[in-house]
Amino acid sequence: MSRILVVGSVAFDSVETPFGKAEEVLGGSATYFSTSASFFAGVNLVAVVGEDFPEAHIKSLSTKGIDLAGLRKVPGKTFRWKGYYGYDLNQAHTLETHLNVFSSFNPEIPSEYTDAPFVFLANIDPELQMKVLEQVKSPRLVACDTMNFWIEGKPEALKELLKKVDLFVINEGEARELSGEASLVKAARVILGYGPKTLIVKRGEYGALMFNGGSVFSAPAYPLEDIFDPTGAGDTFAGGLMGYLASSNDISEKNIRRAIIFGSVMASFNVEAFSLERLDRLTLQEINERFAQFKVLTHFESI
Amino acid sequence: MSRILVVGSVAFDSVETPFGKAEEVLGGSATYFSTSASFFAGVNLVAVVGEDFPEAHIKSLSTKGIDLAGLRKVPGKTFRWKGYYGYDLNQAHTLETHLNVFSSFNPEIPSEYTDAPFVFLANIDPELQMKVLEQVKSPRLVACDTMNFWIEGKPEALKELLKKVDLFVINEGEARELSGEASLVKAARVILGYGPKTLIVKRGEYGALMFNGGSVFSAPAYPLEDIFDPTGAGDTFAGGLMGYLASSNDISEKNIRRAIIFGSVMASFNVEAFSLERLDRLTLQEINERFAQFKVLTHFESI
Repeated sequence: MSRILVVGSVAFDSVETPFGKAEEVLGGSATYFSTSASFFAGVNLVAVVGEDFPEAHIKSLSTKGIDLAGLRKVPGKTFRWKGYYGYDLNQAHTLETHLNVFSSFNPEIPSEYTDAPFVFLANIDPELQMKVLEQVKSPRLVACDTMNFWIEGKPEALKELLKKVDLFVINEGEARELSGEASLVKAARVILGYGPKTLIVKRGEYGALMFNGGSVFSAPAYPLEDIFDPTGAGDTFAGGLMGYLASSNDISEKNIRRAIIFGSVMASFNVEAFSLERLDRLTLQEINERFAQFKVLTHFESI
Repeated sequence: MSRILVVGSVAFDSVETPFGKAEEVLGGSATYFSTSASFFAGVNLVAVVGEDFPEAHIKSLSTKGIDLAGLRKVPGKTFRWKGYYGYDLNQAHTLETHLNVFSSFNPEIPSEYTDAPFVFLANIDPELQMKVLEQVKSPRLVACDTMNFWIEGKPEALKELLKKVDLFVINEGEARELSGEASLVKAARVILGYGPKTLIVKRGEYGALMFNGGSVFSAPAYPLEDIFDPTGAGDTFAGGLMGYLASSNDISEKNIRRAIIFGSVMASFNVEAFSLERLDRLTLQEINERFAQFKVLTHFESI
């Protein structure tokens, strides 16, 4: 089974949605990604937490088969995010961000992680993402995420990074902002020009679009009765995607399409509850059943 | 070949989009619907125009195989709409609406139209839509559209109508408004409770969702480089959908799914140019080629 190296954040989230609220629950891009990917492949996690990070969380991640040799505990408090969602669950509203120990995060990759064949650079400063790449040997596939904060603040560092990225996963608004193009088809052409072989544009409740050379794949989102909490959906998507690619060790477009559906399956479960609640009680059988439902959801016959 | 009766508007549109503008061009729900459906089936059009409506347009519609015995020309001016779209092409901004002769439209169905097996009630007053249904004999399938204006202004008349409708086609915001539910899955359950067997929710550049009993189908939109003018996309979609259903004379869910893709194909062409320009030079070969592209766009393999 191939391993995935993920570098990102581990955090405490306080979230309110139209369906309820959760205080100081486990969150962070690397947490969601790892938990999701752990259903498919081994994960090597690199992140930083403060002294307040409880052993119970470490044990819980560990029992999922996530290797935590790269999780550093340093003096200070863990990263905290507080926000809410209104009825438009595609839009997070941030109330408070306390970077705490994350503000001086300088990812050091343990030597036993440097030959991981799959690498996911979650949304952190593109200069740090680049530092990670400088520490790894020749990975088979490098994927990364980013956000509007870095697109606006460090566009040149981001573009340097993209030269070394195979698969770039961002949301719709970010794709438009980064490319300066309102049309996603044009935006994709611009962004693929920066280096990535494949671009995946996440569209929340509308699914995802993949651009790979001249080929386009449209994946729906699973129509859910209620979305309790969209926090972490994007990283959970990326975790399912990378997890499936690593487990099958096949990075053909055919397999990337399948991996996008697995990513969508994982994200659809994650939003059914707060924090990692739903993923914590998820089974492989449920994953495979929902994959089959995606097939039914999109099926039509040729003429 | 089965015939489709359509009742709706024929209008002159003045439209501005980020890509250009068009003044007093042919538009209206019945016009877009008929032109789109005419690629697949015979169309019987019922609408009203003023004395200013040129013979050239009548000739042009006629040569498409659209029967115009139900198009009444009455004293006064033809319906005019003026609007613009910004970069969010899902949102039309109305500048002027002059109903003119359309304000006293009272659809009379020519006797030779009353046994049409397929009926499409385009977006007009639900009381008039009901009057149309009172004039037709037992159609095989009745479909209808509406808009927020009627949902807000005549909700009871609309609900009465929906008891007699098989297939209801509305957009996402309208589905939420009519049902009072933010979740589309819940909204669909409420709306199907009003009577229709099938609900199709149009989501513009995000495609369409079909709810049929417990079954859901997600159709993507075709990823276009540029959307020149979204005017008429919904009616063009409905025209392709109903046209294909009528031509195949098969209203099974399997065939409705295929028909939704044909509707999406037709809409994707329509938005490539102003007014009916693109449909006027469209070929059956192009339609079938784009249908095949939708298959590639959505294809992924099972595990």
